[in-house]
Amino acid sequence: MELVERARRGDRRAIARLITLTENETPEAAGILKEIYPFTGNAHIVGITGPPGSGKSTLTDKLAKELRKNGKTIGILAVDPTSPFTGGAILGDRVRMSDLSLDDGIYIRSMGTRGKLGGLSKATNYAVKILDACCFDYVFIETVGVGQSEVDIVKTADTTIVVALPGLGDDIQAIKAGIMEIGDFFVVNKADRDGANRVVTELQAMLDLNPHKTAWIPPIMMTVASQNEGIAKVVETIDQHFSYLDESGELMKRRQQRIELEVEDLVVQKLFSYINKKMGQGNRYIQDIEQIMSKEKDPYTLVNELVKESLK
Amino acid sequence: MELVERARRGDRRAIARLITLTENETPEAAGILKEIYPFTGNAHIVGITGPPGSGKSTLTDKLAKELRKNGKTIGILAVDPTSPFTGGAILGDRVRMSDLSLDDGIYIRSMGTRGKLGGLSKATNYAVKILDACCFDYVFIETVGVGQSEVDIVKTADTTIVVALPGLGDDIQAIKAGIMEIGDFFVVNKADRDGANRVVTELQAMLDLNPHKTAWIPPIMMTVASQNEGIAKVVETIDQHFSYLDESGELMKRRQQRIELEVEDLVVQKLFSYINKKMGQGNRYIQDIEQIMSKEKDPYTLVNELVKESLK
Repeated sequence: MELVERARRGDRRAIARLITLTENETPEAAGILKEIYPFTGNAHIVGITGPPGSGKSTLTDKLAKELRKNGKTIGILAVDPTSPFTGGAILGDRVRMSDLSLDDGIYIRSMGTRGKLGGLSKATNYAVKILDACCFDYVFIETVGVGQSEVDIVKTADTTIVVALPGLGDDIQAIKAGIMEIGDFFVVNKADRDGANRVVTELQAMLDLNPHKTAWIPPIMMTVASQNEGIAKVVETIDQHFSYLDESGELMKRRQQRIELEVEDLVVQKLFSYINKKMGQGNRYIQDIEQIMSKEKDPYTLVNELVKESLK
Repeated sequence: MELVERARRGDRRAIARLITLTENETPEAAGILKEIYPFTGNAHIVGITGPPGSGKSTLTDKLAKELRKNGKTIGILAVDPTSPFTGGAILGDRVRMSDLSLDDGIYIRSMGTRGKLGGLSKATNYAVKILDACCFDYVFIETVGVGQSEVDIVKTADTTIVVALPGLGDDIQAIKAGIMEIGDFFVVNKADRDGANRVVTELQAMLDLNPHKTAWIPPIMMTVASQNEGIAKVVETIDQHFSYLDESGELMKRRQQRIELEVEDLVVQKLFSYINKKMGQGNRYIQDIEQIMSKEKDPYTLVNELVKESLK
């Protein structure tokens, strides 16, 4: 496909077009994904997540600038919650990052979650692959929110950075506990604020509780991203983590798991659309649902019937 | 099943046991769900959601007490993020609500999300059905967090209350925009704090943007749950919304959609575990994954093969 070739030579409009085509799940999408697949697997994919207001965007921005000093290229996907009413992205990252987008070695794209609240959408996963195949050295995925999106990042990223900040209330801290397990390292941003040391201590205490220790001990570091403080150290740690993954065999293991998960997800999606079509056909299913509504039948019996009818 | 009969006569230990059996997906679970199904559909299921710190738990507590004055019975499911390290519930709602649990007309259960971060787990859905079948007039589902859990609540609840609070930062407000669509009404709690009116105005402005208007205009109300202020009005609105749902035919429509979604989910789960087992068997799948890792094959081709081999 000529578009793929152009994108792989660094044509930004072609890259944008590929992302849009897969994002909208056009008929071309499957072919694009197949074609780029052999070129993937070279980028270091870094997830950056944390609660709202932790300054993830500024941090991502500064990390990218730091990496540029070493001649590295960076693709940035800013996953932005979509307003369900307007369909548009809410936070407007596109605008925020515009000074970076003048640099040819950086490509920035805002991804709306399109109503899949908090979920890093399938589209983001496709966009990661496209940027990877288009030869960026690093792909950063930056997500807002607490919840499912963090788990989804782990599925896609080689390295996950959890960003915290001083001075949040106690139960935001509690929720943060839920994302402790996914952090390969932790950055306490806005560390010039009161309470930064306390957050570091709390994070350390939580990490010490982790019974599943590996050779990689998740470091905790402080930054003031807006002042560029601590940024070089974070970049260094990103690279150290990649070396650890590579040398320990963990990288291959994670990437294999990622492929298995992706295959499973796609299989589920296909099954779902198959069943959806099957159920949508004819009067039988309508009758079934009516009987369930009137309690003559229960949903579990119908499920067993449908499964039996579907499988070879 | 004797246990179901005991639970339906109000035996709390039997209710707890049923919930535990379904939560742990024991072999008895499928039979329990089938047996209770005909007794479901009588409770008014109310989802209460909003950002951390908005006082959802206190609000739920006060709403239950208010309903008790009218002799109504209430089952409360407090969905609590689980610490991935300890496996235990983080927020400890069980303790908080202990004064309510002395009342025979109230049943409280904390549900851990068990690592499914932010997700209202399948177990909660089963517990809703059990409390419904055990004759509670209302089932409240209270969830912490922003994200997927809110969407899941909509799938389970007849009425969804979104709780907001004054004084959160701008991008927490932005995220809240993502859950506007699911609110049947809105409660600004902690309304004695500065900025309560501003939050009401902002919510109203967002609601006015909604192009999908129905006969039910989502009201916005203020409460100070800790002082019991505004609680009677919220209870009244819960009942008004139920009457609206019932009279407009929307209740039947929502419940039918809920059944359809549940059937689809269960069918997909069953088919998936079938394919998963198939994938886990023999060397073929291992070879497939190896070929994908070495880029000889792409994941999309494998997905198509697996689906084709499994379905009729």
